[in-house]
Amino acid sequence: MTAPRVILLCGGVGGAKLALGLDRLLSPGDLTIIVNTGDDFDHLGLRICPDLDTVLYTLAGVVHPEQGWGRADETFVMLDELVRRGGPAWFRVGDRDLALHLQRSLRWRRGDRLTEITADLASQFAVRSTILPMTDSVVATRLETAEGVLDFQDYFVRRRCAPVVRQIHYDGASSASMSTELLQALASPRLERIIIAPSNPLLSIAPILSIPGMLDRLRWRGVPIVAVAPLIGGRAIKGPTAKLMQELGLRGGVVGVHEFYAKQYPDVIDAMLIDEADVREASRSGCLVASTNTLMQTMDDRLRVAQSVLELSVKGGRP
Amino acid sequence: MTAPRVILLCGGVGGAKLALGLDRLLSPGDLTIIVNTGDDFDHLGLRICPDLDTVLYTLAGVVHPEQGWGRADETFVMLDELVRRGGPAWFRVGDRDLALHLQRSLRWRRGDRLTEITADLASQFAVRSTILPMTDSVVATRLETAEGVLDFQDYFVRRRCAPVVRQIHYDGASSASMSTELLQALASPRLERIIIAPSNPLLSIAPILSIPGMLDRLRWRGVPIVAVAPLIGGRAIKGPTAKLMQELGLRGGVVGVHEFYAKQYPDVIDAMLIDEADVREASRSGCLVASTNTLMQTMDDRLRVAQSVLELSVKGGRP
Repeated sequence: MTAPRVILLCGGVGGAKLALGLDRLLSPGDLTIIVNTGDDFDHLGLRICPDLDTVLYTLAGVVHPEQGWGRADETFVMLDELVRRGGPAWFRVGDRDLALHLQRSLRWRRGDRLTEITADLASQFAVRSTILPMTDSVVATRLETAEGVLDFQDYFVRRRCAPVVRQIHYDGASSASMSTELLQALASPRLERIIIAPSNPLLSIAPILSIPGMLDRLRWRGVPIVAVAPLIGGRAIKGPTAKLMQELGLRGGVVGVHEFYAKQYPDVIDAMLIDEADVREASRSGCLVASTNTLMQTMDDRLRVAQSVLELSVKGGRP
Repeated sequence: MTAPRVILLCGGVGGAKLALGLDRLLSPGDLTIIVNTGDDFDHLGLRICPDLDTVLYTLAGVVHPEQGWGRADETFVMLDELVRRGGPAWFRVGDRDLALHLQRSLRWRRGDRLTEITADLASQFAVRSTILPMTDSVVATRLETAEGVLDFQDYFVRRRCAPVVRQIHYDGASSASMSTELLQALASPRLERIIIAPSNPLLSIAPILSIPGMLDRLRWRGVPIVAVAPLIGGRAIKGPTAKLMQELGLRGGVVGVHEFYAKQYPDVIDAMLIDEADVREASRSGCLVASTNTLMQTMDDRLRVAQSVLELSVKGGRP
């Protein structure tokens, strides 16, 4: 049973960097990471969970250091052969990566829960923190775009986020349920802080918060909930956060991010950690913030941001 | 629609060598190969068809030249990673090989027929002859051994044929059916000869002949049916043929092979092609034979054996 001190809500690459910083700062078992599974999809008959993989590979120290997802020292022998025989090339499945996809898919099709499968994979990779999918139900993020409704990977990988997005749906979320493990983590008597990773609020965090009961349980805990802004100087380090917010008519920059969380999920966020570049902008909005250099390029960066978000004092916070 | 001049009943490595010789001697479309699928099994969530793959890779010219199965220039990055994470090592799935397993498994699970899938794979590899699975139904060769009942790959790969075999079952065969494509091939107006490859009579050929209707259709055609003996000097080139025949109380050598076919399937085999080393033994048994050097090491060997079996005159043969 997990009784974390810290819970992190997390998407892929950006969030995983903070997850690594927290994992290294905290003691084994003290961190539970709730990971978005709205990006999960079926490809080549495999069940692929991009954000879970990115978090797993990052914490295991085997992630590709430059791209931030997939495996370091990866080869693509299978994919090259597949493409040679007329198969699809758009999703880059590596050979090492395949070992994990095969293991997961086999158990997934047998009916094992994603939570159990993820725990076993994390154990194989000797990960110290707990990685939990946001649900064992199937939730699929889908995008209404100017070019029709697109599945997430279709939009994100194949179309490289080019289509203009009008609305986002989290299909299946309304009937999704939280796992026993997730409920236990959220009820941890040792819980001190809930952190929202600098992941895309709309594509990574909102799917997690769309699981019935999740929001209420976060609010009820009465521990500070702190978000790390996913934008620096109004721009996303990676991914379509800024573009997407604009397309959906949201205000830009860290103020826009704060406004999105505050309006969409009242009484959830207590404070935000933002980059120093955004202090002036944030001060005009009245949201409670602290700042540091939030760009996470080195391991030291990850530790610094993790330290900052753990120490962020939440004035007027919860009892 | 296929209207072959020659039909070959075939198992894995040894049979595939003869298939290649025939494929190169005959015109495109003139050869249809009916392949054993009793060895097919599920592994890592993949549907694997070892004999179909061996025949496909051999005819495509991409087979591993020394081992006779799997791909040339293969890598095992996925498998090494899988084993590192505690996965099974006993079945050597290569990275190139995986591309095919993934494609097939995806369609197989969708409900596509193995015959269609095989045809599309053969087309991707630009194979000139027609490769047909013996059935689209699931048939599983299982072995009653001194160590209990074993699945085929368990016996053949994991246990390396060590357990003593008492009986062989072709589970599912009695309710298996022939595909339309197979029925069409067997009804070909151009058919001149049916050849039984030098494959294991019990493990590769018997499963094919166990499909309801197969034996009768072969007999009714009235074209010569010629077997190539899978033993040279009483020994198998590869695999457990001799060991298995002994364990099942069958007579050894080419005479034993002939006796097995003649007793088990009366009025099917018209003649056998045997190795020169076995002429003396065969002459004592009264079976109709021709001889050549049947060891197929080089491409010339394959062509020679193919030529011999095509030219084998069947005295007293069918009208």
